[in-house]
Amino acid sequence: MRIAEIVERFGGVCEGDELTEIKRIVGTDLAGPGDMTFAFEEKSLGRAEASGASCVIVPPELRRSPTTLLRCGSVQQYVAELMRFFHPQPSPTPGIHPSAVIGEGTRIDESASIGPQVSVGANCRIGATAVLMASVVVEDDCEIGADTIIHPHVCLYPRTHIGARVIIHAGAVIGADGFGYFQEDGGLHKWPHVGNVVIEDDVEIGANTCIDRGKFGATLIKKGTKIDNLVQIAHNCSVGPATIIAAQAGMGGSSVLEAGVICAGQAGIRDHKTVGRGVRIGAQSGILDDVPPGTEMFGYPAKPIHQAMQEIAFLGYLTKHRTPLRKLIKTVETPQPAADVGRVPPAAPNVGRVPPAIGK
Amino acid sequence: MRIAEIVERFGGVCEGDELTEIKRIVGTDLAGPGDMTFAFEEKSLGRAEASGASCVIVPPELRRSPTTLLRCGSVQQYVAELMRFFHPQPSPTPGIHPSAVIGEGTRIDESASIGPQVSVGANCRIGATAVLMASVVVEDDCEIGADTIIHPHVCLYPRTHIGARVIIHAGAVIGADGFGYFQEDGGLHKWPHVGNVVIEDDVEIGANTCIDRGKFGATLIKKGTKIDNLVQIAHNCSVGPATIIAAQAGMGGSSVLEAGVICAGQAGIRDHKTVGRGVRIGAQSGILDDVPPGTEMFGYPAKPIHQAMQEIAFLGYLTKHRTPLRKLIKTVETPQPAADVGRVPPAAPNVGRVPPAIGK
Amino acid sequence: MRIAEIVERFGGVCEGDELTEIKRIVGTDLAGPGDMTFAFEEKSLGRAEASGASCVIVPPELRRSPTTLLRCGSVQQYVAELMRFFHPQPSPTPGIHPSAVIGEGTRIDESASIGPQVSVGANCRIGATAVLMASVVVEDDCEIGADTIIHPHVCLYPRTHIGARVIIHAGAVIGADGFGYFQEDGGLHKWPHVGNVVIEDDVEIGANTCIDRGKFGATLIKKGTKIDNLVQIAHNCSVGPATIIAAQAGMGGSSVLEAGVICAGQAGIRDHKTVGRGVRIGAQSGILDDVPPGTEMFGYPAKPIHQAMQEIAFLGYLTKHRTPLRKLIKTVETPQPAADVGRVPPAAPNVGRVPPAIGK
Repeated sequence: MRIAEIVERFGGVCEGDELTEIKRIVGTDLAGPGDMTFAFEEKSLGRAEASGASCVIVPPELRRSPTTLLRCGSVQQYVAELMRFFHPQPSPTPGIHPSAVIGEGTRIDESASIGPQVSVGANCRIGATAVLMASVVVEDDCEIGADTIIHPHVCLYPRTHIGARVIIHAGAVIGADGFGYFQEDGGLHKWPHVGNVVIEDDVEIGANTCIDRGKFGATLIKKGTKIDNLVQIAHNCSVGPATIIAAQAGMGGSSVLEAGVICAGQAGIRDHKTVGRGVRIGAQSGILDDVPPGTEMFGYPAKPIHQAMQEIAFLGYLTKHRTPLRKLIKTVETPQPAADVGRVPPAAPNVGRVPPAIGK
Repeated sequence: MRIAEIVERFGGVCEGDELTEIKRIVGTDLAGPGDMTFAFEEKSLGRAEASGASCVIVPPELRRSPTTLLRCGSVQQYVAELMRFFHPQPSPTPGIHPSAVIGEGTRIDESASIGPQVSVGANCRIGATAVLMASVVVEDDCEIGADTIIHPHVCLYPRTHIGARVIIHAGAVIGADGFGYFQEDGGLHKWPHVGNVVIEDDVEIGANTCIDRGKFGATLIKKGTKIDNLVQIAHNCSVGPATIIAAQAGMGGSSVLEAGVICAGQAGIRDHKTVGRGVRIGAQSGILDDVPPGTEMFGYPAKPIHQAMQEIAFLGYLTKHRTPLRKLIKTVETPQPAADVGRVPPAAPNVGRVPPAIGK
Repeated sequence: MRIAEIVERFGGVCEGDELTEIKRIVGTDLAGPGDMTFAFEEKSLGRAEASGASCVIVPPELRRSPTTLLRCGSVQQYVAELMRFFHPQPSPTPGIHPSAVIGEGTRIDESASIGPQVSVGANCRIGATAVLMASVVVEDDCEIGADTIIHPHVCLYPRTHIGARVIIHAGAVIGADGFGYFQEDGGLHKWPHVGNVVIEDDVEIGANTCIDRGKFGATLIKKGTKIDNLVQIAHNCSVGPATIIAAQAGMGGSSVLEAGVICAGQAGIRDHKTVGRGVRIGAQSGILDDVPPGTEMFGYPAKPIHQAMQEIAFLGYLTKHRTPLRKLIKTVETPQPAADVGRVPPAAPNVGRVPPAIGK
């Protein structure tokens, strides 16, 4: 495809030879002749030029180049569109695979695609162009919105509600019982969990992630929230809208991540805590208390990142200076008779390494 | 259902209007007119009253109220029973779904329910009223006890033994090979794992949790233990009885959690360590050594919680006072000519608690 | 089987009664009469003798024993071979189970075994004696090498390449989209991920582990690498060769673990970081920066282990001595008139920040 055709279809302005043929779009590390690549700033433009790529997509403000440029408003959006264009997703055939098992009272839009070995329970509703890939299990009374894609081996427990344009990756489990027991007569008794999980539009959920059903009400994943792989969301949590949770993070029961929170990988949030709008939680951090909006948190237990970093650095400093510190502490602690000052030399009225001259 | 009928069926004493009609049972946050809710102490009773709920279940010692109360011995047990009553679990049809594949020599009780797309290997035994939901895979020589429920996509590797009344949530993997290799000739060689997993009665295992088979003997989950989602139990561990492991926690090979241990989320236990009876392990803590019974542990590496909290607090204190501390340290470290004593005033030869006698 | 026959088949030298009958091979903790067990050093030989085992496999250098010994070059290799001999894996029947669904253009070697409820997409290639167990899902354009075993419920996204002699345990998800979004117009937009996952020969991947596809290029697991359960490998990572990653560890996008790295459980590696050849990463450690080859790292954030341990120990020491330290700090901070020196001895009025005027 020639750059001219790309410009015609996707917009932007070509600076250079618009008749150049483009075979694919890739990052600068993989780019070479025949490739289109992209650069957000000076440094990556340099790399792009060095790569021998035939064309570089750049934002309005970036400098000109001997390499042919394609200048556009939003490089990210432009590249994402081109990627989708060069690598179109196969659209699954509408209809129900003969090996699928569908329960009574379930209504499946005829544009939806139900793959092999799928099992759908009773009284479910599956929207237009929704896709259930191989071996998905949907239990009774679930709703799945239009354009939603559910990858293989996902399990939806009864009464799960999934909005439109949701993506759920393979192996995710939505709606398992919350983890709640009470002790009585020396044994652990299970709290029944009769709530459900509600996932709003435009959410993406990663592979093997688990979202438990509410005890009474719903566990709620709000519009536009993105959750990575192997994440644990306990019963009655509320997440989003537009919140990001990276891989292996976990939320305790009834905790809340408000709008626009960014939670890095392997972080944990204690049950019944609320993390305010726009908070950023660092990797592996442990949130043990409510967090006010807009804060950046780090550490275990988590603190405002500035404070956490200062403490980490200062412990390093103290440890590096552990010899004088030990001396200082010993000096203060040990009552010493005038005649026997222990390790402090008699002539040295000072502590530690301070030369005697000072002591006069 | 009227309160009078509830009392007749489940016991307890009504204080107020026993003819009130109850539609559902919910927590105080969701309660309103027509609802029954519950309160364990004064504060939640206040919330329950404010909710407009028609009736509040309370323990014997709680105060009277203008709202109708239902007083009973154990609020938790009473509420759990009511929840099961108002939200009865559908009992799956006994029998084997025609799409299921059953191996030779396998005996399935005729009251058991084998769902669609299930695959059971050879020589298995499945007990009375046991339920294997859609797409469960049971490999050869497994045993599954009576009343056990296995949710979709669970995989039992060969020779797994599951007791009675066990619940295994979707996607759990029971009996995969332990993670063991030895180095030889510059490569990594796999230790065969020929043991199995034994899960005793009344255990519950969370979604996508992994329990590896033993190398020679069994990995053992003892009676009444409850394990949350995404937990890792390595080969040859022993857990329980009546032990609780929250989500994303992990145990190294051959480690032991004795009876009644409570392990919070994302905690880790090193291989070959024993955590004694009744120990409580805090979230994200890292257990690197044996822990004596009854201790409460926290931190990374984990210490008795008192000590851990003291250290965390004291590092905060030190960091807050880092300026004077830095000065103290510099004073002790820097060799200083008599004429130029830097920041240490000439007349002050000592620091801290050094007895006056020394200073002379 | 008599020891003599074992020696004949597997080599080694018997010291003792080579006519002894052996029923099984087990660890010393499970051993008794009729069992063969093994010992690497003096201590375990003692345990083996005490166990009453009929024979102990030992390395060349270990002492003689009243118990019959079987001396061999590599105890580990010998034991592993015997374990495989006494517990032979059932070899699955070649062929395609009638319930499996196979896409167009897919070529399956006739010695391969495709289990029940398996779904294979279009244009895949499956090598000789490869095994796809029950309910495995392989999407379009995948390649699976010879002798590879894929356990139940594994999902391979399109274009995944798996080498020879690979083992993938139940529930692993290979090739889900990388977790990447960009913000624009106030919303989160998905980065298309058009790369794939390449798994080289002799790799083993644990249950429910997730390996995401690359954005443009491949996420690469190199030859002989072993990955445990519930591990997260993000898009565009490169791991190995012969690297070990224990359970629940996680790697951020585009990070690299070079050859022979050993990463313990629940550790995390930040995105775009490179961990050099032979590095060892401690459990739960958080790698926030590149790590030079051969280092041993520990802690959060991770540091060279020596330094990390020193800091942990020193914080303990400081906290234990918090009373004198607090005093020292207060002394320095509080301006004190000469006449009232508080707890500081009269002759020593200053430390640190105290203004010079005081010191006179």
